[in-house]
Amino acid sequence: MTASPAPDTRHALQQTLPGDVRAAARSGELSSATHGFARGFVQANLAILPESHAFDFLRFCVRNPKPCPLIDITDPGRAEPRRAAPGADLRTDLPAYRVYRDGQLVDEVRSIENLWRDDHVAFLLGCSNSFDEILLRNGIPQRHLESAGGRISVYESNIQCEPAGIFRGPVAVTMRPIPAKDVVRTVELSSRYPIAHGAPLHIGDPAEIGIADLAQVKWGKFNPPSPDDVPVYWACGVTPQAVALAAGIPEMITHAPGHMFVTDWRIDDQRKG
Amino acid sequence: MTASPAPDTRHALQQTLPGDVRAAARSGELSSATHGFARGFVQANLAILPESHAFDFLRFCVRNPKPCPLIDITDPGRAEPRRAAPGADLRTDLPAYRVYRDGQLVDEVRSIENLWRDDHVAFLLGCSNSFDEILLRNGIPQRHLESAGGRISVYESNIQCEPAGIFRGPVAVTMRPIPAKDVVRTVELSSRYPIAHGAPLHIGDPAEIGIADLAQVKWGKFNPPSPDDVPVYWACGVTPQAVALAAGIPEMITHAPGHMFVTDWRIDDQRKG
Repeated sequence: MTASPAPDTRHALQQTLPGDVRAAARSGELSSATHGFARGFVQANLAILPESHAFDFLRFCVRNPKPCPLIDITDPGRAEPRRAAPGADLRTDLPAYRVYRDGQLVDEVRSIENLWRDDHVAFLLGCSNSFDEILLRNGIPQRHLESAGGRISVYESNIQCEPAGIFRGPVAVTMRPIPAKDVVRTVELSSRYPIAHGAPLHIGDPAEIGIADLAQVKWGKFNPPSPDDVPVYWACGVTPQAVALAAGIPEMITHAPGHMFVTDWRIDDQRKG
Repeated sequence: MTASPAPDTRHALQQTLPGDVRAAARSGELSSATHGFARGFVQANLAILPESHAFDFLRFCVRNPKPCPLIDITDPGRAEPRRAAPGADLRTDLPAYRVYRDGQLVDEVRSIENLWRDDHVAFLLGCSNSFDEILLRNGIPQRHLESAGGRISVYESNIQCEPAGIFRGPVAVTMRPIPAKDVVRTVELSSRYPIAHGAPLHIGDPAEIGIADLAQVKWGKFNPPSPDDVPVYWACGVTPQAVALAAGIPEMITHAPGHMFVTDWRIDDQRKG
């Protein structure tokens, strides 16, 4: 990934609309993670698969709604997410992409126009970035948004997904350090947003979900809990990438972790859930 | 459909557990609609399609989450809904089934064991029966549960589904007469249950959603609003059957309207949403 945008650009992108974030990614101006951008709008994880694996993957998502809450699916060969952002182009409108082949991460690129095929199907899955704004509005600090270029902490847990066809592997989780006095309210608030992964999967000891050392993130950046904080874990839309690696999926193209697609949906629009 | 069960059996089935309702359907003891049975558990609509149409239909459901909230999908050839009711058999555990071919309703049967094929995929979609119990607990009367053998009123609206592949057609809606003073609370309560169709689609004048005469139900039975009632309409899981008819789908097997599959999920289990 390239460096974070300058503070002025970052501030502007927090206040701006989804279409402007997407345009900045498309033009190449934006190559950073999207945490905190277009606040109040739903951000989404991307997974692109050949049509031959799409029905398996779709069953996988329905069986694992906490890590993989489905927002939109394109028709084969169509890169426009007509439900989530009519007119957008999933080949160019994210700041960075990853390419997995035969269970290996083989590339990270800024556009996938030259990789896109007529048999590709794109899936958009909700992202917990989407409720950061709700937590902030309720006075619950979000450590990963406190510094410029902040990133959320993502781990591989020992919780296993319910398999479907060739798709199987561990659930990836985000961790937010939450002040102990705010943990109950955090569960209440996040549980209202199932399309953003909903209620946490776990609260407290990382060892109970197979994380040996919080400082060793698998994706993103470590945000150390302060003495009054409790680590709280949510299912994460990086799970398909953990699955691509664990199950040796022949081909999957995704967003780069943290570099999300910003949809036109407001987080509080209940019609979308 | 055959006659309703005797009052004693009906009362027993309201209080009983989902597995007992399914066993009664399997043994042939139960052939009636399941309104009010196994109260507090999620009931589901069924649609069975050949694998060749399953990916199209799955995209259709994701694009139309209000009429088609996905609960479970089987692997091709497997009739056990492992998420919603491990051990159950979708070929026998519903009180009645309908068979659609080339856009025509061609049969209604009590079991589909002899129709099931290795390329069949079964979809379970949430049902608004599931929140009847919540409304009742909150003192909001449910007219269709007030008489033995009551049925909900189902109509074809003029709202069109977002198409996917061969699937296109109108949204089917249920109508409940709700006392005017309870309408706001009804919206609040039902909106908490997206897997049971969530918030209403419409409140009030049926003509606004293309229903000329409330007395002319397309499925189920008319429950006339009293002078203090307002008709409230929810998206309905009979929609796939309206689509089978409208789009001339080559083959679809469904539940008979009102004769639902009763899952093991409690309506308040947020892990499932």
